[in-house]
Amino acid sequence: MKLRRDIAYWIATVALVICASVYAQTADPLPSWNDGSTKQSIVSFVRGTTDMSDRRFVPPAERIAVFDNDGTLWAEQPMYTQLAFALDRVKALAPSHPEWRTEMPFSAVLKDDVKAFEAAGDRGLEQVIFATHTGMTPDEFTKNVNEWLSGARHPRFNRLYTDLVYQPMIELLAYLRANGFKTYIVTGGTVEFVRAWSDRVYGIPPEQVVGTTFVTKYTVPNAHPTLTRKPEVDFVDEGPGKPEAIQRFIGRRPIFAVGNSDGDQQMLEWTAGLSGARFVALVHHTDAEREWAYDRSSRIGRLDKALDEATAGRWTVIDMKRDWRRVFAFETAN
Amino acid sequence: MKLRRDIAYWIATVALVICASVYAQTADPLPSWNDGSTKQSIVSFVRGTTDMSDRRFVPPAERIAVFDNDGTLWAEQPMYTQLAFALDRVKALAPSHPEWRTEMPFSAVLKDDVKAFEAAGDRGLEQVIFATHTGMTPDEFTKNVNEWLSGARHPRFNRLYTDLVYQPMIELLAYLRANGFKTYIVTGGTVEFVRAWSDRVYGIPPEQVVGTTFVTKYTVPNAHPTLTRKPEVDFVDEGPGKPEAIQRFIGRRPIFAVGNSDGDQQMLEWTAGLSGARFVALVHHTDAEREWAYDRSSRIGRLDKALDEATAGRWTVIDMKRDWRRVFAFETAN
Repeated sequence: MKLRRDIAYWIATVALVICASVYAQTADPLPSWNDGSTKQSIVSFVRGTTDMSDRRFVPPAERIAVFDNDGTLWAEQPMYTQLAFALDRVKALAPSHPEWRTEMPFSAVLKDDVKAFEAAGDRGLEQVIFATHTGMTPDEFTKNVNEWLSGARHPRFNRLYTDLVYQPMIELLAYLRANGFKTYIVTGGTVEFVRAWSDRVYGIPPEQVVGTTFVTKYTVPNAHPTLTRKPEVDFVDEGPGKPEAIQRFIGRRPIFAVGNSDGDQQMLEWTAGLSGARFVALVHHTDAEREWAYDRSSRIGRLDKALDEATAGRWTVIDMKRDWRRVFAFETAN
Repeated sequence: MKLRRDIAYWIATVALVICASVYAQTADPLPSWNDGSTKQSIVSFVRGTTDMSDRRFVPPAERIAVFDNDGTLWAEQPMYTQLAFALDRVKALAPSHPEWRTEMPFSAVLKDDVKAFEAAGDRGLEQVIFATHTGMTPDEFTKNVNEWLSGARHPRFNRLYTDLVYQPMIELLAYLRANGFKTYIVTGGTVEFVRAWSDRVYGIPPEQVVGTTFVTKYTVPNAHPTLTRKPEVDFVDEGPGKPEAIQRFIGRRPIFAVGNSDGDQQMLEWTAGLSGARFVALVHHTDAEREWAYDRSSRIGRLDKALDEATAGRWTVIDMKRDWRRVFAFETAN
């Protein structure tokens, strides 16, 4: 009886697999990308690296794809989402910190005094980040992030921040995974901020998110094993830190990399420098109407040297305005 | 035509899957384990956590299993394999370092003067490790390790070091993976020493090996992107470092953990402290005949406090002599 049930189960499975297989051969895996050289180059790369008869073939285990997060997978304007979280969190915590009413930079945050907060510089930023991101367990932090994400609204679009992910990139991630690629995020943001929702939003599990880390200490108070996030940066996953972190965490050289700013330059160089098949691309924010247009002079997501290197190194430049039929899933399809 | 070929392909696949499924229901997945409470507790845990109708059920994504390496997955006597590699490597590099003939601790290593080398203490050990493990790219180091492993012989068994892996643990790793667990190594050894061969020997890919790391720097000499291993320890993955590294690298709390020494105590505690289903075990080296017998007073792999905690916390103790029908694959099956 067990065997008969198994056979029925597997026949159903096979029917599904055949349907999926037929569908996969006809459906466009990247419907939010306009037809053109960018989309073509992606599809050609994926077909070549997954076709055993192609000289570009890469065994599944080596199909490592890395993506920056802010400005590459979701919007980063008018401020990094993680900073928006930190500022809101200062306000939420203020009742238990009466001293913040007069203490910089917290007083500036509580009064929405952007100028004064910015005047506090990197040290002010660090104080706000430490006060809102450390001193708790990783689980407590994850809970804070997800509670905030479930309610906070983006100032321009009046949408949840997780609605501000780029639909073409969601399709690209799924397309790569369907072709045996392992997709990673390599973010300059702190790793646990992104891990809190990366699986739900991108289909990328926590163990495939690499990022900036805080020193985290293990202790056993009252026989209760505990990890605590300390107000001390352990590693900054930005610039040359990105290839260094890729080596430390993944231990393989990626064959596919996408970024959008000078902070991604070294990760893209490292991928481009590999002999054999590799795909290296920059998202260029060129669409002020649907998203934003910024590059060389932007304070957030500055894209200057990496844009020059893209041209010199023949990296793919994803032109948001030209290449993306749709930027966000909530747009009316056209 | 394409569709017809696909159908033929999937029918063949289904036939295979049915065979595999029938086989899996009858074959013992752990043939090198003696029947008894240890084997029973493993099988019961895996059945419970993978059965949706069992209160112990754990979704596949959360089935994280972590294993120490030295003394847990392969032999660590009479010295850690990584140290044997380092000492041999000093001899291989000696022709380009004439100064080593008179310079401690290298002169002691070249003369096989164990006493003098040990007298040089931790600082001497560090010098030998830095001289043999850093100053090159990760790829060069991987090549060095694999060249050595292909020829070096274990002094007692006159076998390749990679033959000294424990067959029961190889079966356990495969059994867990066949049940949707993601298997990780969390080693006190340096991560790239283990990554060099973990996939080939354990079926664990480099990105699932966590370990002690050296500072590794990214530079671009002559337009050639390069990572270089520096003679500076970045992170020591031992003791409390193990749960800390699990959080940093994996970002999930394991539900299955096996170690063999006091250096694994915190990793086991961290796993045991989880509410809900978890399996925590120590390999106890009790078999001087087939392997070694050592615990509380051993210099290598000392098992003292963790053994007390195992008793108090009701962790599983894997008694090598009692629980393993076969220790190494090369033994004649009995």
